[in-house]
Amino acid sequence: MSYERPNIQAMHGYSSGEQPDSTDVIKLNTNENPYPPGPAVVAALAGLRAESLRRYPPPTALALRRALASLHAVDPDNVIVTNGGDELLRLLLATFVAPEEAVATASPSYSLYDVLAAAHGCRMLHYPLNADWSLPRELAARLNADKVKLCFVVNPHAPSGTLVPAASLQALATDFHGVLVIDEAYVDFVDPELQHDCLPLVRQRDNVLTLRTLSKGYSLAGLRMAYGIGPRGLIDPIQYKTKDSYNTDYIAQQLALAAVGDQPYARSTWQRVRQSRAELRTALAARGLPSPPSQSNFLLASVPARWSAEALYEGLKAAGVLVRYFKQPGLQDKLRISVGTPEENQRLLRSLDALLH
Amino acid sequence: MSYERPNIQAMHGYSSGEQPDSTDVIKLNTNENPYPPGPAVVAALAGLRAESLRRYPPPTALALRRALASLHAVDPDNVIVTNGGDELLRLLLATFVAPEEAVATASPSYSLYDVLAAAHGCRMLHYPLNADWSLPRELAARLNADKVKLCFVVNPHAPSGTLVPAASLQALATDFHGVLVIDEAYVDFVDPELQHDCLPLVRQRDNVLTLRTLSKGYSLAGLRMAYGIGPRGLIDPIQYKTKDSYNTDYIAQQLALAAVGDQPYARSTWQRVRQSRAELRTALAARGLPSPPSQSNFLLASVPARWSAEALYEGLKAAGVLVRYFKQPGLQDKLRISVGTPEENQRLLRSLDALLH
Repeated sequence: MSYERPNIQAMHGYSSGEQPDSTDVIKLNTNENPYPPGPAVVAALAGLRAESLRRYPPPTALALRRALASLHAVDPDNVIVTNGGDELLRLLLATFVAPEEAVATASPSYSLYDVLAAAHGCRMLHYPLNADWSLPRELAARLNADKVKLCFVVNPHAPSGTLVPAASLQALATDFHGVLVIDEAYVDFVDPELQHDCLPLVRQRDNVLTLRTLSKGYSLAGLRMAYGIGPRGLIDPIQYKTKDSYNTDYIAQQLALAAVGDQPYARSTWQRVRQSRAELRTALAARGLPSPPSQSNFLLASVPARWSAEALYEGLKAAGVLVRYFKQPGLQDKLRISVGTPEENQRLLRSLDALLH
Repeated sequence: MSYERPNIQAMHGYSSGEQPDSTDVIKLNTNENPYPPGPAVVAALAGLRAESLRRYPPPTALALRRALASLHAVDPDNVIVTNGGDELLRLLLATFVAPEEAVATASPSYSLYDVLAAAHGCRMLHYPLNADWSLPRELAARLNADKVKLCFVVNPHAPSGTLVPAASLQALATDFHGVLVIDEAYVDFVDPELQHDCLPLVRQRDNVLTLRTLSKGYSLAGLRMAYGIGPRGLIDPIQYKTKDSYNTDYIAQQLALAAVGDQPYARSTWQRVRQSRAELRTALAARGLPSPPSQSNFLLASVPARWSAEALYEGLKAAGVLVRYFKQPGLQDKLRISVGTPEENQRLLRSLDALLH
């Protein structure tokens, strides 16, 4: 017999991009930073002592929260550190959404939201994005009419890479009666000239929380460290009630502290990614694969009707270049391509040329 | 306004033992192993490269699962690796218990079970243990009558340290209609002469899962690594549906692999703890503080009525020795004391002598 809850039995798990063991593969499918962690992380790793692992770690990662609070000009009580962004997303449902309530997103979006809602046993509503990937009109009114308790907006958007201006999110947060979660997993790659900043909104309102991760911006996907910034009404119940008591480990806390402390290195990787993003976008467009303007570390390239996106994905994979293909409505004619190093991007383009000609 | 779910708003978070920053304190309050991780962990830590952190970690820790499977003579598919034991306990509720259902434990027990049930929003039933800490009579029949979906049994028991024989758990599992979780956080410290082994039960039945942790037996509380062993019907839905996609990080997986691979070192620490446990138990009894026979790395010492356990706890704390005091029915006249190194145990006894005389 099965002991699973009915909603668990009925659901499908999250399928992540392939993670091959081989180091020969050009991996442009899961949006990792193409540059390694910087010298501060290398030094912190070298300075670790195994003996420190004998005792439990600081339960709320206070030293790291202080550093993050200082970086973002908020109070440490407005920061929660989690074991990757996935944990924070799950905890938001666990803390604020009862199983009979509804959560929502503007779709297409990060498919994990659906998986988390299914596992939690709550309803998931989808509001289609406009053709230019901007937020649907009257979104707040529709969320309120549907009694949505919590809404996820990933910004920059995944998988398109486009950016919703802070003013639009401000309007949404003001009118929406529930909790607005701004998933800023890719925000580090936004062009600084845009002066994009959602933190004033977080400081102002009681219903907005923003998620950041060290996986992409700080080249630490293997370490599982992310954080949320929000008002205490949203942070406290997660920090002191629903998160696992010791949710992040000692080493991860130490290395994250080192990474966050070296802003010049992190910023240099973001700048290099932005430069490569512009070059790659132009090169793809020249080959007939246009993409919307991306403020993230990936591009969503449209494949013209005379080719098949799925066949291109398979062809690239056979050539040792992994990109992401989503077999779902609205995305079936597209490929999501993470921005790699200039050398990786060149190899992608050469492999594409071989397939297209 | 509060956005919390009503059950979250009503609940209290878990209170763990104090984790002082000071290294002067003799810390016998949270059951850490008194000996540091061994040379294999030291070597693995020294061999880590920061560059490995750029990519996502293996999502189900396959290499570690293979090593654990080999250690316990099960298949890797029968093993799930989690971010500490807390995560596995929470996932068991999330996967198998609907909010309207009930979970249970024989009490007193690990207080986190209550916190997890409150956060999940399900009912928690308590069946008092017998005076000698053995399981209540007719427990399976009572669980079935109360339609309990999942029952936690911590064995060796916390906070008494006593051991329920595998045969009693076999009888319970056979008669109980729900999922039996045997929380073996402290099982590494059981005297090998007892030949205690619940794995035959796990291999035989579809409703039994056992939890192990590297926090105590392998001196890695700071690393947050634990695992479950169970039938695929219980493991698979957690592994592929309800756990966070990348729930343990790359470094934790590597160091855990090293720790598990060096059984002789780990066993040597268990043997030293058992030796000290016997000596400390005798010494405490000689001072009028008897404790039940412990198969764990702690003792639950009874404080005679002419003294106050709480006052002794406070007095020890003022002397720089932390032990655990539980202000709850059945435990108010007791202190839970982790077994330290011989030097730490001597300092505890000297401080006790100063307070008692």
